[in-house]
Amino acid sequence: MIKIIVDMMGSDNGSAATKEGVRRFKKNHPDCELVLVGKLDELADMEGYEKIEANDTVGMCAGAMEVLRKKDASMVKAVKAAADPEMHADGVISAGGTGAFLSAATLILKKVPGVKRPCLVTAFPKLIDEGGYVTILDCGSSNENTPEELQQFAFMGSVYAQAVYGIEKPVVKLVANGTEDGKGSPVGKEAFALLKDDPKVNFQGNVEGNQLLTGAVDVAVCDGFTGNVLLKTTEGVAKMMGKEIKKAFTRNIFSKIGYLLSKKGFAEFTTKMNPKKTGGALLLGVNGVAVKAHGNSDGESFESALNVAYKLACNKVVEKLQEGFKE
Amino acid sequence: MIKIIVDMMGSDNGSAATKEGVRRFKKNHPDCELVLVGKLDELADMEGYEKIEANDTVGMCAGAMEVLRKKDASMVKAVKAAADPEMHADGVISAGGTGAFLSAATLILKKVPGVKRPCLVTAFPKLIDEGGYVTILDCGSSNENTPEELQQFAFMGSVYAQAVYGIEKPVVKLVANGTEDGKGSPVGKEAFALLKDDPKVNFQGNVEGNQLLTGAVDVAVCDGFTGNVLLKTTEGVAKMMGKEIKKAFTRNIFSKIGYLLSKKGFAEFTTKMNPKKTGGALLLGVNGVAVKAHGNSDGESFESALNVAYKLACNKVVEKLQEGFKE
Repeated sequence: MIKIIVDMMGSDNGSAATKEGVRRFKKNHPDCELVLVGKLDELADMEGYEKIEANDTVGMCAGAMEVLRKKDASMVKAVKAAADPEMHADGVISAGGTGAFLSAATLILKKVPGVKRPCLVTAFPKLIDEGGYVTILDCGSSNENTPEELQQFAFMGSVYAQAVYGIEKPVVKLVANGTEDGKGSPVGKEAFALLKDDPKVNFQGNVEGNQLLTGAVDVAVCDGFTGNVLLKTTEGVAKMMGKEIKKAFTRNIFSKIGYLLSKKGFAEFTTKMNPKKTGGALLLGVNGVAVKAHGNSDGESFESALNVAYKLACNKVVEKLQEGFKE
Repeated sequence: MIKIIVDMMGSDNGSAATKEGVRRFKKNHPDCELVLVGKLDELADMEGYEKIEANDTVGMCAGAMEVLRKKDASMVKAVKAAADPEMHADGVISAGGTGAFLSAATLILKKVPGVKRPCLVTAFPKLIDEGGYVTILDCGSSNENTPEELQQFAFMGSVYAQAVYGIEKPVVKLVANGTEDGKGSPVGKEAFALLKDDPKVNFQGNVEGNQLLTGAVDVAVCDGFTGNVLLKTTEGVAKMMGKEIKKAFTRNIFSKIGYLLSKKGFAEFTTKMNPKKTGGALLLGVNGVAVKAHGNSDGESFESALNVAYKLACNKVVEKLQEGFKE
């Protein structure tokens, strides 16, 4: 049975959002055990769950120091429970601050032996008829990486894409400033040389930013700084375009009727682009499933994040990484 | 009078596109002198223009070596004419390969004294009601930069935004993985320290990728690798979303009617997002206006690129940079 520890206090929207997410998830996965961490009075209406009391929270911008200090914070207690061998937990999920969660997961769950640096993974919907997702990593857990770290990200991303999206041999590419072999950041070029001869990944060269959503790549590897810029830019452009679409439809009575006539197609499109469906990011390379739900999670997106954690646990992604790095 | 040298052969769409662009531009700017460089037989129907014969072209992926070798290429001859003191030209424009154009402009026009490295500039439309553009640089002329280079990009971008968009004190920010002062790539952090005390720019800290189009910033500074990824990603997401919009509208007869009813609003939106309107990129930091039109320019986008070159020349951007770097 899968067992996931849930930080109930991290979301900007309070425990109402996490509680709704837990209920929605549990309805579809009655077999999965969830342990809820938070203020017991706020969780009083969650019956039938194992609970761990935690009366403090870490700030959204907290770093490693605050994480170490705040021993009674729900996020810290949740990660500690996930690391506790007696709990037999598969992983932990939190909607708290990214920096704090990365620190807590790395410090408490500890890196998988052989992993140089854990990395943050996000998946973007491919905007093609066949659908699917492109896995992008590192999305900002570090802001500088070595070529060897990029090489490891490629492997971790492949294992993830296999496990979560069922892609047998995920196409791995390095994010670069051109598709030719000689392109890339200085670190990227060195990583290219390492990946070219790496039998553990299906490396197929460089990819440019405009190819990421076109299906040309399953796993896009970059340093954490680039990944963060890439992720935020994509989100920003998509959000602003969404606003413009709304504006175009609410322009006058005709455009409003136009919307009613074409809304089915737009609903499909909006569903595809909905960040709530991808459920946040996750940290790969630590000894346990570690999923970071969106800070502004509502019930739906917290449920998606729980789904990701569940899928990672069912597919034994952590065990596969532990094995892979043993070789 | 403004005089611009035009490489007529660089576009993927051949001289038909550049000729149309020249004619369109000339209609609105009869006072501006254009010198056309290319095969004389192809330009036979362009009467009343000074012409320079050039019978070769450089490849789209050519670098500095090919530029130095291909003495009869239209791009090389055009840049040489722009550098020739007897021509009294203000600048040069080409739709040829970016790498070749950067090399030719840097080698032949030469860097403005004091400039460490020229940079490629692109402007993106801000997706806000007030409109306007955000200037992004470096967009990929280098793939690694020093903090001092980033500091210079900030100044060059400010001069550009003042001259072309009439922004009195452009808000300059560094592209980073967070808005807090401590964020940024290692090079970015050092540039932050330099810019904080730089009286020549209105530096206001860091900006994240999701804020670029929201009006929070007029000049976004980053290293060339990051800038290239940022640019390509934005283009890619916008293009893919455009396709999805089209798909949603062509779904069935109702959605097609829906499109007819709402197309005015979408036309405004599409016009705003149209890369043809921004006219390509330009190289700042060399002794002359140097505009790189889109490789796949048609008449409209080549006209836009000519407009940018004209505006830069009229506003004496090169002279302002030369003065600014003298101090």
